[in-house]
Amino acid sequence: MALTIQGYAAQSATTPLAPHRFERRDPRPDDVVIDILYCGVCHSDIHQARNEWHNSIYPMVPGHEIIGRVSAVGAQVSKFKVGDMVGVGCMVDSCQHCGACHAGLEQYCVEGATWTYNGMDRRDGLPTFGGYSERIVSSDKFVVSISDKLDPKAAAPLLCAGITTWSPLRHWKIGQGSRVAIVGLGGLGHMGLKFAKAMGADVTLFTRTPDKEAEARRLGADHVVLSTDPAQMKAVSRAFDFILDTVPSPHDLNPYLETLDIDGTLCLVGLLEPIEPAVAAHNVVLGRRSIAGSGIGGIAETQEMLDYCAEHGIVSDIEMIDIQDINKAYERMLKSDVRYRFVIDLASLKKAA
Amino acid sequence: MALTIQGYAAQSATTPLAPHRFERRDPRPDDVVIDILYCGVCHSDIHQARNEWHNSIYPMVPGHEIIGRVSAVGAQVSKFKVGDMVGVGCMVDSCQHCGACHAGLEQYCVEGATWTYNGMDRRDGLPTFGGYSERIVSSDKFVVSISDKLDPKAAAPLLCAGITTWSPLRHWKIGQGSRVAIVGLGGLGHMGLKFAKAMGADVTLFTRTPDKEAEARRLGADHVVLSTDPAQMKAVSRAFDFILDTVPSPHDLNPYLETLDIDGTLCLVGLLEPIEPAVAAHNVVLGRRSIAGSGIGGIAETQEMLDYCAEHGIVSDIEMIDIQDINKAYERMLKSDVRYRFVIDLASLKKAA
Repeated sequence: MALTIQGYAAQSATTPLAPHRFERRDPRPDDVVIDILYCGVCHSDIHQARNEWHNSIYPMVPGHEIIGRVSAVGAQVSKFKVGDMVGVGCMVDSCQHCGACHAGLEQYCVEGATWTYNGMDRRDGLPTFGGYSERIVSSDKFVVSISDKLDPKAAAPLLCAGITTWSPLRHWKIGQGSRVAIVGLGGLGHMGLKFAKAMGADVTLFTRTPDKEAEARRLGADHVVLSTDPAQMKAVSRAFDFILDTVPSPHDLNPYLETLDIDGTLCLVGLLEPIEPAVAAHNVVLGRRSIAGSGIGGIAETQEMLDYCAEHGIVSDIEMIDIQDINKAYERMLKSDVRYRFVIDLASLKKAA
Repeated sequence: MALTIQGYAAQSATTPLAPHRFERRDPRPDDVVIDILYCGVCHSDIHQARNEWHNSIYPMVPGHEIIGRVSAVGAQVSKFKVGDMVGVGCMVDSCQHCGACHAGLEQYCVEGATWTYNGMDRRDGLPTFGGYSERIVSSDKFVVSISDKLDPKAAAPLLCAGITTWSPLRHWKIGQGSRVAIVGLGGLGHMGLKFAKAMGADVTLFTRTPDKEAEARRLGADHVVLSTDPAQMKAVSRAFDFILDTVPSPHDLNPYLETLDIDGTLCLVGLLEPIEPAVAAHNVVLGRRSIAGSGIGGIAETQEMLDYCAEHGIVSDIEMIDIQDINKAYERMLKSDVRYRFVIDLASLKKAA
């Protein structure tokens, strides 16, 4: 007996999100059923709702920054019990036997991870639906614990924006003495600033708008560089070990590459599109620099990040919205008019539409 | 009293190389004067003789794979004596006090290394001239020893093609168990095959021409993949830890990136131009892959490479030419018609032109 629940869905690439009833599967033995309290709104929700990645399945219920309480568990689940505060991020399953899965990098599963929405469940072949809804059902291996030290609203964006910035900063061993720059001050960028600062790095924000300086400093930046000012850019030539580039649309990497020291890495975390304009190869060859990329993070490191956040008092800066405001929120996000992540209060689903 | 010597020079981007008399400086206290025996012909000689990098100084005497015998030394030189077999590669000086120079990475000198030709001497401000000539004068810090175990003719290309492939293979810690692919079977590529094999890697050559298989295997390849065959490319999806890309002209990196495993690196060593067509960011993001670059190598590691070559019997496969044949050699190189490096016998300079 499947659960019929309420959510918000896009019915096509060109229709606004609207109320939508759909079914969730009965819990399998390894499933956790979660009553969703909050769901962050990620830029990729817009990309996918509007079929900008050309792989959208409709109706689509977006949302992969999910916080809620466990309302039921399958027979084999021992890690969670009813009432626990938990989270679900971008994945709800993976093959569990490839090298990537064994390495705790389920997002790079050779067979492809099962995405939380706009994916296909690998066991029943049915589409997956995300967190803009009352309830979600996920394999326990893809559910994480949320400490009661964390504000659950502000913890929601950690499930994607948090882990997406945390994972590369850890992988590239950012710590005391690291010279880190962040490109872009949005949902990802503001988490990048907080994490890099907490890890002990000397942190610079690259921005195109001078009015972001005070905000950037509040969030953890030691320095702010206006990337549109050639003199400021020249002054940071070879200045950084690591650049975390969070910009979600194509942009010129060349000016940033020149600010990397020898052996420095620029890591893309917000872009899937072609890198245009073209990177001049001399910008990597003459300095042994790297252009890398990193996609979200594995489940174990997501839990590690959440525990670190609980210990260090780190959450996302958020603006709460009702689900009825989701289309307006998308428009504001496209104008970068949010500090720094919208989070949907799913209690609003119960309001008259 | 400067030395007037004979060489071959390009007088402009569009004139063939021809005999040219020019002056070398009197040796400074730290200088080594070298009577040149052999000089390898690098693809970058063509790029620069023809001003394809838009920074050429004429007249230009190319050549930076130089082997010769010491004929004089300055008062402060203790490391070399008259009669020693020595080499000079792409650089003849650097600032010697920046972080890169202190790290033995003089090629990335913050102030810019002094290139062996088409550069400006950092002390007297005069243009530098390369190895297509009778004699060269270089600071002793940029002269390397050539073991008598090495055939000096076949050792010449080690000074650029050798170190350019050796350095990244060592930096990325290639060894037993590494899965390495080489793109391009030219001067650089054939050295990449030899080094990667000698270091213990499982080595694959990517090629666009099926007839290179036997040659590739002779040079050290365990496998050959025809990059124009989609089935062969698909069969090596995620198969490599490291790809050494030696191709000296713009080409599509995307198909190669898909053959890198998670955390794999594609390292450009032959290209300075824009990376076109554009790299799809998802090819680095979805697998935490890197596109890196590496430029030649430092002086200490050049000596290390030469000593390794002497110990392991590794040299370049060469075809000897007289200097009078240099323009024909360039045309053949542009058709990839050389196995695998032309080396000029500078004794030919004494022939009637």
